[in-house]
Amino acid sequence: MALKKIRKDNYPEWYQAVVAEADMAENSSSPGCMVIKPWGYGIWERIRDVFDEKIKSTDHENCYFPMFIPLSFFQKEAEHVDGFAKEMAVVTHSRLSMQDGKLVPDSKLEEPLIVRPTSEAIIADSFSKWVKSYRDLPVLINQWANVVRWEMRPRLFLRTREFLWQEGHTAHSTPKEAEEETLRMLDAYKDLCENTLAMPVLVGRKPEHEKFPGAIDTYCVEAMMQDGKALQAGTSHFLGQNFAKSANITFVNKQNQPEYAYTTSWGVSTRLIGGVIMTHADDEGMVVPPKIAPYQIVIIPVIKNQADEDAVMDYISKIRSSLATKLPFGDKIRIKLDKRDKSSVDKFWEWTRKGAPIILEIGKRDADAGNVMIKERIKLGTPEAKVIISANELENSIVERLENIQAQMFDKAKERLEANIRTDINTAEDFNEYFAQSNEWIEDGKAAKVAFVRGKWCGDPESEELLKAMKITIRCIPFEQSKTEGVCLLTGKPATLDVIYARSY
Amino acid sequence: MALKKIRKDNYPEWYQAVVAEADMAENSSSPGCMVIKPWGYGIWERIRDVFDEKIKSTDHENCYFPMFIPLSFFQKEAEHVDGFAKEMAVVTHSRLSMQDGKLVPDSKLEEPLIVRPTSEAIIADSFSKWVKSYRDLPVLINQWANVVRWEMRPRLFLRTREFLWQEGHTAHSTPKEAEEETLRMLDAYKDLCENTLAMPVLVGRKPEHEKFPGAIDTYCVEAMMQDGKALQAGTSHFLGQNFAKSANITFVNKQNQPEYAYTTSWGVSTRLIGGVIMTHADDEGMVVPPKIAPYQIVIIPVIKNQADEDAVMDYISKIRSSLATKLPFGDKIRIKLDKRDKSSVDKFWEWTRKGAPIILEIGKRDADAGNVMIKERIKLGTPEAKVIISANELENSIVERLENIQAQMFDKAKERLEANIRTDINTAEDFNEYFAQSNEWIEDGKAAKVAFVRGKWCGDPESEELLKAMKITIRCIPFEQSKTEGVCLLTGKPATLDVIYARSY
Repeated sequence: MALKKIRKDNYPEWYQAVVAEADMAENSSSPGCMVIKPWGYGIWERIRDVFDEKIKSTDHENCYFPMFIPLSFFQKEAEHVDGFAKEMAVVTHSRLSMQDGKLVPDSKLEEPLIVRPTSEAIIADSFSKWVKSYRDLPVLINQWANVVRWEMRPRLFLRTREFLWQEGHTAHSTPKEAEEETLRMLDAYKDLCENTLAMPVLVGRKPEHEKFPGAIDTYCVEAMMQDGKALQAGTSHFLGQNFAKSANITFVNKQNQPEYAYTTSWGVSTRLIGGVIMTHADDEGMVVPPKIAPYQIVIIPVIKNQADEDAVMDYISKIRSSLATKLPFGDKIRIKLDKRDKSSVDKFWEWTRKGAPIILEIGKRDADAGNVMIKERIKLGTPEAKVIISANELENSIVERLENIQAQMFDKAKERLEANIRTDINTAEDFNEYFAQSNEWIEDGKAAKVAFVRGKWCGDPESEELLKAMKITIRCIPFEQSKTEGVCLLTGKPATLDVIYARSY
Repeated sequence: MALKKIRKDNYPEWYQAVVAEADMAENSSSPGCMVIKPWGYGIWERIRDVFDEKIKSTDHENCYFPMFIPLSFFQKEAEHVDGFAKEMAVVTHSRLSMQDGKLVPDSKLEEPLIVRPTSEAIIADSFSKWVKSYRDLPVLINQWANVVRWEMRPRLFLRTREFLWQEGHTAHSTPKEAEEETLRMLDAYKDLCENTLAMPVLVGRKPEHEKFPGAIDTYCVEAMMQDGKALQAGTSHFLGQNFAKSANITFVNKQNQPEYAYTTSWGVSTRLIGGVIMTHADDEGMVVPPKIAPYQIVIIPVIKNQADEDAVMDYISKIRSSLATKLPFGDKIRIKLDKRDKSSVDKFWEWTRKGAPIILEIGKRDADAGNVMIKERIKLGTPEAKVIISANELENSIVERLENIQAQMFDKAKERLEANIRTDINTAEDFNEYFAQSNEWIEDGKAAKVAFVRGKWCGDPESEELLKAMKITIRCIPFEQSKTEGVCLLTGKPATLDVIYARSY
């Protein structure tokens, strides 16, 4: 019952198949945009709720800022900032009118409006009105919003023109405090990825040429997908006084002197869902970590004889009530009873492809014996794929089972990550040979053909050219540095900086 | 300590003052758009959470659809639908480029994109792909999203170019089922307005000329503001097969015949917050119903002597823990301890203007005696405005107090609504005279100068002209009809239909 495309044969097509068969999202008639369907959106809601709690518990408050940003707000950035991205949706008219039977844009705006690609510019403008004195600082806000970047090669969840995200924006009275905030939120992202999405990440600083335009420092969390490519899962930026200077966010400091504020910004998006898919899904479809599964348990009634229906449904109702009081991960358990008019086998495969963590199949024989058949998604294909246990055992073990699934999913991904960071490549020649190969699916328990390389980098401009030519990137400069002398894997020049090299999404 | 503008003197300016002094929202540098600030957004989050639960408990699922809708999707509507609104934001370019040192729109799109004013068109397009057979129906979905309508006279919360809302969209196999859905969600809106926002509403059907373009029937909930004007708080539309025909949503019915689906849509927006303000706020500022207050209780430490600080804070910490276990309205209680470096008097007035339902002031004397000073926002200005009670009494009464505040706010607004629907105006002459007057603030306990009139309407086209000339509207055709014969209050012609006349926001 494997998907039409499996990882080994065609990894990119397998990804599309997982998304389609799990009914998580689809391409829309709106070019380059996606429809996020209930199962995909339900996962996003869980991610949002978990991270929103974190945002609030660290004293940030949610706001909402306009999605239209006047063109002039970008003028300064475009003049001064290298790498200013210009692929943006531009609103130029505010009306439609009918001309010769055809609708056409009308009422041209005096100043075009940009649909936010990110909100530093418009939020800094508000901060400049809110902040007068050091007493008004810090300002710690966040918004959950849609943003638009005009991608030319859209891929569901990974790269669509419109996507959903959260963006935190803060202003502080000292650079130290702003840097601490930047790293605090980076740490919150690591925690979100590892402890909620079961997706292990590497943490570090971006090299100069990969920084967010206008940032002093960009920090990131980077995950390894099952094909050895890297996925940037989240970024946190220390912006210094750069945006404060453009938007004039000034405050009177304790010495009664005017000073520009120090700002930060940080975000994660629906792209995380793409990361979850490529971390956990298999050839049978999606596998959702229990913490973010819209339903952690799906109950499928197995009615072979219409006369048994009442007895089975009564028994299921009892099972359901006994489970409903449980609090896996300290939260209300999420259970779906699938009563649709469909065969139980079809239902099983549908929920399997969606990656529901636990499926319970319950028929007349189970009801009579006080049992349930339990199927854990991560055990599919192993001898333990289906087990009959008593209702009592189910009730007593369900929390632990869900917690174990979450832990095992993380451990498996962590193992894959740790086993596939090469640290033994020491020359530009070996490095070239390694990355001359294409990325392929990393089979469980086997070494990756191509994945991450941890090695030296000299930082010279010519090394950036080599990166482009090889179509690889420096994912991050890890915080822990060996400080040993070595040879740049790109240029062969002497170098001490340790970096992570990889292909990436 | 009243606001700079009070209701009696200038009602519209009072409204602006409430929003500003409660720090709920402000105008943005993005023309016609608002920044929703933490206190305003916190109220929206509460409304969203309450209604989201309702949406899910009635079997709807959340999705997310693209905000860009190709222009061609509107072509048919524009040709066939009377009253098709054309004020929309139009995206025509996908890039900025620098020309002579100035950023200008570049990369013109082949087809312009409209920023969704509502999503019937793009969602119907998805439905047409999802629905094949009667077995695929009903489709019951909802999204929480931003939408844009090019308002020329924006007002915070009431009418801004961009606003936040939820829009439900459903498709059914029979008109009966779709009509039931339309009325079920109308009822959900009534429940939300009355039981969550403490804002009583009238319920009914819109007259033909006030319907959503393309709808068979539009139903609405209408609230009365403190100046006697109506606010449309939510609408629910039965769309028949109109949108199914444009988008080709067809299914094979049980008789094995192809048939167009029957669809509905329904929405409420951040406009509700404007309604809450104009229902509950007073000359001292905002008053937030406890069910949607971001903080239901604000604790202000009163430290007159630095030496007392530890004792006071310890005592507050105990009070807080004892309150933290309480579940007003079956939900976690929301408490804010305001530790800012500001005078307690300033803090009190700030939270009063924000409308926090209960403020506790706690100083050394209270700590020593085991007391707290409790101030309920709705009692401000009365002899019961501040009361000292024991910590024990506070703990035992807090849930009931919050529930009482919620109930009293509703009762007061309900009284105002019921007392100000005139039913004794029976001639066009009296009606004319009545609406020749301007709307004014309805002082507590006094009769409105101008508010709602319940009376007859003939439905003739000429009556619509008279409505326009008088700048009044028919808010709804109530479900309960007297069925008596009478005289149309506009034309003087014989009429049997009872309608609600009012000026409106």
